[in-house]
Order: sequence, then C-alpha cells, then structure tokens
Amino acid sequence: MKRNLLFILTLSVTLFSCTFTKNAEISNSPLSLWNESSVKTSIITFVESVTDENSSDFVPEKERIAVFDNDGTLWNEKPLYIPIEFIIDYIKKTYNTKPEWRENKLYKGLAEGDMSVLKEYNTIDLVTQLFAANDKQLQQEYFRDAYNFLSNNKDKKFNRPFKEMVYTPMVELIHYLQANNFKVYIVTGGEITFLRTVSEEIYNIPMENIIGSSVLLEYKSDEKGSYLVRTGKINSINDKHVKPVNIELHIGRKPIFAAGNSDGDYEMMEYTLSGNNPAMAILVHHDDKKREYAYMHGTEKAIKDADKKGWHVISMKNDFKEIFAE
Amino acid sequence: MKRNLLFILTLSVTLFSCTFTKNAEISNSPLSLWNESSVKTSIITFVESVTDENSSDFVPEKERIAVFDNDGTLWNEKPLYIPIEFIIDYIKKTYNTKPEWRENKLYKGLAEGDMSVLKEYNTIDLVTQLFAANDKQLQQEYFRDAYNFLSNNKDKKFNRPFKEMVYTPMVELIHYLQANNFKVYIVTGGEITFLRTVSEEIYNIPMENIIGSSVLLEYKSDEKGSYLVRTGKINSINDKHVKPVNIELHIGRKPIFAAGNSDGDYEMMEYTLSGNNPAMAILVHHDDKKREYAYMHGTEKAIKDADKKGWHVISMKNDFKEIFAE
Repeated sequence: MKRNLLFILTLSVTLFSCTFTKNAEISNSPLSLWNESSVKTSIITFVESVTDENSSDFVPEKERIAVFDNDGTLWNEKPLYIPIEFIIDYIKKTYNTKPEWRENKLYKGLAEGDMSVLKEYNTIDLVTQLFAANDKQLQQEYFRDAYNFLSNNKDKKFNRPFKEMVYTPMVELIHYLQANNFKVYIVTGGEITFLRTVSEEIYNIPMENIIGSSVLLEYKSDEKGSYLVRTGKINSINDKHVKPVNIELHIGRKPIFAAGNSDGDYEMMEYTLSGNNPAMAILVHHDDKKREYAYMHGTEKAIKDADKKGWHVISMKNDFKEIFAE
Repeated sequence: MKRNLLFILTLSVTLFSCTFTKNAEISNSPLSLWNESSVKTSIITFVESVTDENSSDFVPEKERIAVFDNDGTLWNEKPLYIPIEFIIDYIKKTYNTKPEWRENKLYKGLAEGDMSVLKEYNTIDLVTQLFAANDKQLQQEYFRDAYNFLSNNKDKKFNRPFKEMVYTPMVELIHYLQANNFKVYIVTGGEITFLRTVSEEIYNIPMENIIGSSVLLEYKSDEKGSYLVRTGKINSINDKHVKPVNIELHIGRKPIFAAGNSDGDYEMMEYTLSGNNPAMAILVHHDDKKREYAYMHGTEKAIKDADKKGWHVISMKNDFKEIFAE
C-alpha cells in the first residue's frame, strides 16, 4: 500500500509538472530540451543518485534544496536587466510628477533617454538609487505595476513580452528537480516582489520561494485598512556574498544544487558545494550569438575558476535544443 | 481518475499528519484536544468553508497561509522567554572566557545570576544586547548549541525539557490546518535559527517556514571551507509592526489565519483580517493558573480590542482539554 501511494504521488507530481513544460515531450527521458552531452548526463546521474534510497549519495527530501539565479540564468539579461528596465520605465512615466527628481542626475538622464548615465555608478550605488524611485508607493500598487510591465512590455530584439524571455531548457530543469521532490528557490539580485508577480506563472515556483534584493517596507493601519508601503531604504542587495546569507535567512539549509551565470553567483555556488551532502553546481555560459547573445563580461572570474571549483559549465549554444519557447 | 488521485493525496496527507499528533484520537472529529465551545466551532466552520470549492468563501490552496506566533502561543513563555533562557545560559557558560564582558552591566548581572538587570532595558535594547553575545560564533555551532539547549535543559516548574513545553491543542490545530492544505508559518519574536532547530520535530513545520528575529550573518570562505558567522548586528527584531513586514519579505502573501497571544501580535492579526479573502484571527489568553499561568501583562491592548477587531479569544482554561502532552 505504501509503495502504491508513493507511486501515485510521484505520478501526480510528474503529471502536474508536465503541464508546465509546454514544449517538452511527454516521455520517460528527462531534459528533452537538452542536447545529449556530458553535462546533461551529469545532471541526471546526480538527481538519480540523491533520490535513490539504496545509494550512498541518497539525500532525504527535506534537504533537497535547489537554488537558481534568475537574470542570465533563467531569463535574458541583455541589453539591460529586466528589473532595471522596469524601474526605468517607472521613472520615465513618473518624472513629470516629481519636481524633486530634476536635481537627480540619474533620474533626469534616464527620463530623457540617456542610458549612458547608468555607467557612472557602481552596482550598489546604482541599485540603491534606482530602488529609491518607488519610495512611498503602496506595495500592492507596485505588485500590480510589475505584473503589468512584465506582461505588456516587449523585449525589442526578440519581440516577445519580458515574461516570455525565459530559457525553456532551464525551466524544464526546474520541473525535473521538482518532480524529484527538490524544493526549488530562486535567489536573484533582482527585486524580490518584481519576480514574485510572475514566478508561479512562468516557472511553477511559489512566491515564497523567491529570495531577492529588497527595500524596507513600512506597515500602516488607518481608515483605508492595513497595508504596506515601500520606502527608499535598502533592506538587502542580494548579490555575491549576500546570497548565502539570504539563503540561510529564508531557507535555513545549505542547498545541494545551484545554478548561476555570473560572478554574482560565485559565493552561492561555492557555498552549495561546501556541505556534507553530495552537491552540484552549474554555470550557464552565454555563447550563442545567433540565438541569444555571446558575452563574458561580469562572469570572467566564475568561468575562470569553474573547473577548479567543480562547477559544470553549460554552453547555451551546444547544450540547449532551444533557447526560448518555439 | 482525477478525483481518485485527489482523494488519495488528501488521504496520504491526513495519514502523515496524524502520525505527528501523538495524543489526538484518530477519528473524524478534528481538534479532539479542544473542549466543545463556540471558538472550536468557529475554527472548524472557517476551515471547512475556505476549503469547500462550492462555497463563496473558498480560498485556493496557494493562498491558504496561516501564521502563528510562538512564545506564549505555541509554547510556554514564563517565567522567561525560552529564547532568552538560551542566551542567558550561553552568557553564563562563556562569561569567564570573555574579559571584555566584565564592563557590560547586563552580561555581568546575568552571569552572576541577577535576573533583575533584565528589567532595566526596553525590549529593543535588551534584544540588541543579548543577540550580540553570540557575535563571531559559527552559525553551525550556534545551531548545535540551540538544539542541545532545547533538548537537555528543563523548565523548572514543569520539569520537562524546553522543547516539550508545547501546547498540544495548538499543535493539533497546526496539523489540522496542514491536513487542509494550509501552509503554516511561525512568525516569532524569538531568534529564527533557535526555533528552526526543533520546528520540524515538535510542530512538523519545515525550517524554511520559520520567520523570526535575526542578526546579520557574514559569509566566509577559506581553508576551512565556506560557512556563515554570526555578528553582533541586528538584522530584524520581528515584533509588532515588523511582523507584517517580514511576512511580506518571506511569504509575499497576506495570511488568512493568524494566531497570537500578546500585543506583539496585534499588527499581524490586524493585517491578516485586512485582505480580500475570508480570514480568521485567534488570541490565546493565559487564564489557567492551575495548569499553566494566569497573566495579562503585555497583552492588555490585544485583549481589550479583540472584540472590536473580530479576534476570537481562546481561554486556555476552558477551551483546552490539556495544556502540555499528558
């Protein structure tokens, strides 16, 4: 009886998962959107061994934590990070109603379409200033705006809504891990609420499994009800060494699977491989000029150290049958 | 076929849940550790209506979020909060190895057994100073120490290990909600990692569903590996208006069920009832001098406003068949 229940549970999870992988063949072979390669074999071997109760590599379900970066790992990040596109769009729309912004070089430049101002700041200063644009906005309005932006605005090169700029082989990998009772989290440098608005729809990842950068919120209760308001103060910039810190805050366990694409994911991948359980880390390399982009900037250190660290490098050109849904 | 699958899924969740409710009768009547009363009826009516697809009060599974305070709501909080007992124990054990602590009035007093020093600080100053005691401790050592403390140290009045000072009717309520596909979270003023060490064992609540007060951690990577170190800097004091803020950070949705026992839970209960979904809030009142404690201090405002706010007050004396496992 117990085995039957388990079988039916597994079956139902698998069926559930399949409905989200539109283009995947419904077959027994996992990762159907991946070309045959050593990295595909390594992923499948890893998953089969940690889920095999008779294997010395077996990992109990509650410890099967997988963490994925988002920008550049699960969806496109060029020419600009999509979360940054959203804030720029907001600044452009709001600029005329905020006279105080005229003194701000960054906001003024962006509102006037001068993207070169972005290069004048380091990441932390830039994120701090950009996040401050939504100061005093109601959290639920921000949520609505983010969902609408991702649904209605299109990437110019590919002419598809931003929320459809996802790499289908990576989404298939998420569903494969979920079908094997991994808890899958996204650990993004992007703003946490922004991604939550679409994470269930595009990845089948529940909102509470999104970990990201954030501002401090304020609780208010008045005649309008009880609600949250955004402030201009940074709570956390979820990049580099902060990723393992926020993994501990939100999850409390060391992951056994990590996927990243840049130096911002270096510590998360390193941390994932440092536990007592068997673990795996993959690094998505953008080398497909024809179907997406080819670039190395911002990922030099991770690519250079990948071999030494035991990280598997994914070639988007060679390992993915498709990049976006076809 | 679909209905059969659903039935078996529900059955298996129910069976799973029952194994955690040691003292509950395995029967069709939920909340067997609760006396018959209007509040018990209200809870069951609420759960049945939000899970009934034919009810206008139906709430989809992913929105069935329940939040529970911990100290005084799920386990005993007198004569001192258990998380505070833990830090005092650590200060006493460590005091002789830290000459710099001799200048600190709070640490000196506690090490010498003078509990009256606790009264000289407001909550925020007290928590800030107490949390700083574990500065520079490895996170994994802290985790081990917390688990050992909760397992091996006993409450003096009841002569049982701290981790067994849980209110069984409330644990039964958690399992009842889980069996009805609620995601149950704890939102505690206590330190987050401290509670995570036992949450799966004593409540069947996974570590990632614990939200609590926290210090900033530091990521280190060196010849010893990759690991996290505690600092003396507060990240968040999860009390009062901060509870809704951290609910948004960790979950991203408004709960539909909240349980608290003090003024520290006021905003969390208020926030829970402010959404568009049907929602319920309960306030555990300590009025059982014989079986536990009777007190009102720290909960005056919540008790006074309960009726007006629509919160259900639980009388531990009248509503609970037992307090601790018998």
